[in-house]
Amino acid sequence: MRWWGWGSDAAAGTLDAHALTLLRDALDLGGEVRGPVALEEVRLPEMRLGEAAVDRLRAAAEVRTDREARVLHAAGRGYVDLVRLRSGRPDGAPDAVALPATAAQVAAVLEACAAEGLAVVPFGGGTSVVGGVAPVAERFAGVVSLDLGALDRVLSVDERSLTARVQAGVRGPELEADLAARGLTLGHFPQSFEYVTVGGCVATRSAGQASTGYGRIDALVLGLACTTPVGEIVLPAMPGTAAGPDLRELLIGSEGTLGVITEATLRVRPRPVASRYEAWILPSFAAGVEALRALEQGGAAPDVTRLSDADETRLSLGMAGATEGRRGELLRRYLGLRGIRGGCLMVLGWLGEPEAIAARRATAAAAVRREGGAGLGTGAGRSWERGRYHGPYLRDHLLDHGVLAETLETATTWSNLFALYAAVGDAMRAALTARGTPPLVGCHVSHLYPSGASLYFTFLARQERGAEVEQWAAAKRAASEAIVAAGGTITHHHAIGRDHVGYLQAETGALGIEALRAVKERLDPAGIMNPGKLVPDRPGG
Amino acid sequence: MRWWGWGSDAAAGTLDAHALTLLRDALDLGGEVRGPVALEEVRLPEMRLGEAAVDRLRAAAEVRTDREARVLHAAGRGYVDLVRLRSGRPDGAPDAVALPATAAQVAAVLEACAAEGLAVVPFGGGTSVVGGVAPVAERFAGVVSLDLGALDRVLSVDERSLTARVQAGVRGPELEADLAARGLTLGHFPQSFEYVTVGGCVATRSAGQASTGYGRIDALVLGLACTTPVGEIVLPAMPGTAAGPDLRELLIGSEGTLGVITEATLRVRPRPVASRYEAWILPSFAAGVEALRALEQGGAAPDVTRLSDADETRLSLGMAGATEGRRGELLRRYLGLRGIRGGCLMVLGWLGEPEAIAARRATAAAAVRREGGAGLGTGAGRSWERGRYHGPYLRDHLLDHGVLAETLETATTWSNLFALYAAVGDAMRAALTARGTPPLVGCHVSHLYPSGASLYFTFLARQERGAEVEQWAAAKRAASEAIVAAGGTITHHHAIGRDHVGYLQAETGALGIEALRAVKERLDPAGIMNPGKLVPDRPGG
Repeated sequence: MRWWGWGSDAAAGTLDAHALTLLRDALDLGGEVRGPVALEEVRLPEMRLGEAAVDRLRAAAEVRTDREARVLHAAGRGYVDLVRLRSGRPDGAPDAVALPATAAQVAAVLEACAAEGLAVVPFGGGTSVVGGVAPVAERFAGVVSLDLGALDRVLSVDERSLTARVQAGVRGPELEADLAARGLTLGHFPQSFEYVTVGGCVATRSAGQASTGYGRIDALVLGLACTTPVGEIVLPAMPGTAAGPDLRELLIGSEGTLGVITEATLRVRPRPVASRYEAWILPSFAAGVEALRALEQGGAAPDVTRLSDADETRLSLGMAGATEGRRGELLRRYLGLRGIRGGCLMVLGWLGEPEAIAARRATAAAAVRREGGAGLGTGAGRSWERGRYHGPYLRDHLLDHGVLAETLETATTWSNLFALYAAVGDAMRAALTARGTPPLVGCHVSHLYPSGASLYFTFLARQERGAEVEQWAAAKRAASEAIVAAGGTITHHHAIGRDHVGYLQAETGALGIEALRAVKERLDPAGIMNPGKLVPDRPGG
Repeated sequence: MRWWGWGSDAAAGTLDAHALTLLRDALDLGGEVRGPVALEEVRLPEMRLGEAAVDRLRAAAEVRTDREARVLHAAGRGYVDLVRLRSGRPDGAPDAVALPATAAQVAAVLEACAAEGLAVVPFGGGTSVVGGVAPVAERFAGVVSLDLGALDRVLSVDERSLTARVQAGVRGPELEADLAARGLTLGHFPQSFEYVTVGGCVATRSAGQASTGYGRIDALVLGLACTTPVGEIVLPAMPGTAAGPDLRELLIGSEGTLGVITEATLRVRPRPVASRYEAWILPSFAAGVEALRALEQGGAAPDVTRLSDADETRLSLGMAGATEGRRGELLRRYLGLRGIRGGCLMVLGWLGEPEAIAARRATAAAAVRREGGAGLGTGAGRSWERGRYHGPYLRDHLLDHGVLAETLETATTWSNLFALYAAVGDAMRAALTARGTPPLVGCHVSHLYPSGASLYFTFLARQERGAEVEQWAAAKRAASEAIVAAGGTITHHHAIGRDHVGYLQAETGALGIEALRAVKERLDPAGIMNPGKLVPDRPGG
């Protein structure tokens, strides 16, 4: 992972000139291009650990205190993280990076940190976009990033029960490669797939692009092991049980605040032998939502479903050059014949046996046509598939060109979906317009449930040079307040981290927070585990 | 509900003479018939509440202290409960029964009980078979049964999102009747369906006969409200969220030990317009398991699936008279032609649109035939359907005739299923044979999951007159220890209650129990909520 941004230079590509022109015009950008500072220019806080503390940590596990390790573990990959990293001013950095290779070494690191009064930030792929790995640790003698990268083995696969026991540091592609060799898949593909770890997905309760079909990570976790400062919790894989509250569901989404998830037993499935992605244009967002609701509630939803609103559709097609010149003319004519002007892009995808895909696809196509949809074929579907992990690279390019580029997601019931959609979009537009940087706001429905769906918002605006963080914070606050007021969840799949701490209580109530605090205080009595994340500090505490 | 047994006299029917003869021979029963004592003969512990305490309770909600109310709330409907009730010696009884009509009255009752040092036992349908409503309250000044029966309303139904907000005291049939009027169903049908409440199902993490298709209650709960001694937790219905640990899953299965669930928002579905139940005979239990595993992992399982082992099959068919005389000869000849001797009974059921049922049925039939199954048609399926809620009545008849009749259930992965099956059956046979009462032990697979299945055991033996409870305890202990040693869950759908308290730690570890205790101590600092259930007392505490 590039220290200042996403992935590797080799995979980054370039920003299409046509797309850049479009954004320049729409957002009133200057022509300026500003890349990241050099690594040597990054200002790191002074390393606070004394020799004794480092020795103690080294007795527990491999430890790095070099500049590169500290910078690479200084932040996740949210917009604000990138703004700060690129300008050479990360918001703190760990004093040391521990790299335990076993659960016993994880326990030893926690013990050393507790003894030395050090905060611990569990670190998987480092892809959090909500400040989940930020070293928020003012009240500690130092902070240690606990990198799970060395816990990288698939421990066993039970092909009869379709389960896989894997260590927390296994990355998405390595897990899928291991499973593929056995004809299996987990089927969990967040946009960050190429870098995420299994432990990170579990700890943040993630969803992936195919989760409408395969289920969120919480539907795939059957067993767990978690090392806490006071001992280990091992929850065996049980297919179904009535043995009390489900402690798996207490550790899933715990974001490193209760302990370090060291392994998980996951549900796996036969690897699909075929896939099909295709695109459609719906006459309106409402029509598209209606088609998706009917499919999902009828048990016939595609595995991947994605419905853009009119603004996101215009932006996507525009940036892809699909609305310009002869190509644009043909598209408009094709849609015009079907009574569609503008319209909303829908991408549908199926994974499985070819015959099953054909049957499911026919059902879906009928439902989409019933709502007035016009097929764009598999070409547009394949181009979505090709670019499915490219979003974070695009964001780096946009940052080069002075664009605020942020995404956020929520979910609610079908009945409440349009009210939430309107409220959040309006709030972001108002907040950024008030600052003199009117945004482009796009939204898509990304995951379906029988009772509702998620909404994934993207907003782009001209950066306020010198006030990038304040500008972002204003928009983020406006969006978060709108989400809460409209009854949506503060996060559908990005987790709470640092950025959503103030909004969790809207979903759990004060007493729900107290229940979480009670568990935290029992498992992490010194409060060293990922401080400042998930659970709000007590007023005055 | 009859105070000494199940349901109503009108629905109880009689025990078939043929079945009785079969059991008399198999279990070496005497001819004696012993019914319950008269209600007036039931020895209740003296009511311990003073006038001030009763007045305080009456200020909170309607309160009953009469004999009938106390007896009716003295126990659930487990084997030991019935043995004790029938002999007029329940294991304690509540001092009073509170009947709050609103969540505010529930809170007021809890407040009064905390102030007076009284334990509170939440009471839904009173159908627990694991001591979940037993008044275990030695260290308290008294015990109050908090009956949710007056919280009996369906509050709202969102037909677009397919959700229903219902009060905890709504009973199964009333909920289904209300939903049926709107063309909907919850689809949750435990054997106790006719008496269970929604709150009881949620608090005990129940499964129903169609849960292979419709999902366990935990898969149907979207939102919850729970009144604890320190305040209310309201968790709104979110279709999907990454907002931290799932507190719903902490309250589901909490068995009244954290608070009183007062309402739930549930996922509902279009009411099926048709149903089809049919029976098959498989050549062996292993062949049947293989067929069910293939169907479930292929996403093609029927909604109801039930595969009896050879012993249960012999017992069921024998008691139904299907193996006697000409009928038995025909059956044997039909099966013999298909290479089956003895064999294992499988009941499959589908709910939905007729065309969908036909297609799903064809897939299932092919899978069952592939394993050598022979169809018995819909007649046998319908007779299962007719008798689906009759088990508890049969148990009352068996108790009349001096039969120990108990059931217990577990679950594990497909890989571990046969080992668990053998271990539990062997343990029960050994324990009861050692007491001179060799049992009939039957088992069926009752619920399917991609990673495994549940096993539901029935055991019948001649009662040891005068040592009924010790006899049961020996068998129950042997089975529980075998389950834990073989890696099964201590309960697939009966919950922990009082009877499984000692075995929960095998699944959660000591630290998992500590996490639960931490929540309990925060939400119920005086420990008044359903003491003695779910979480073991601290050693010496």
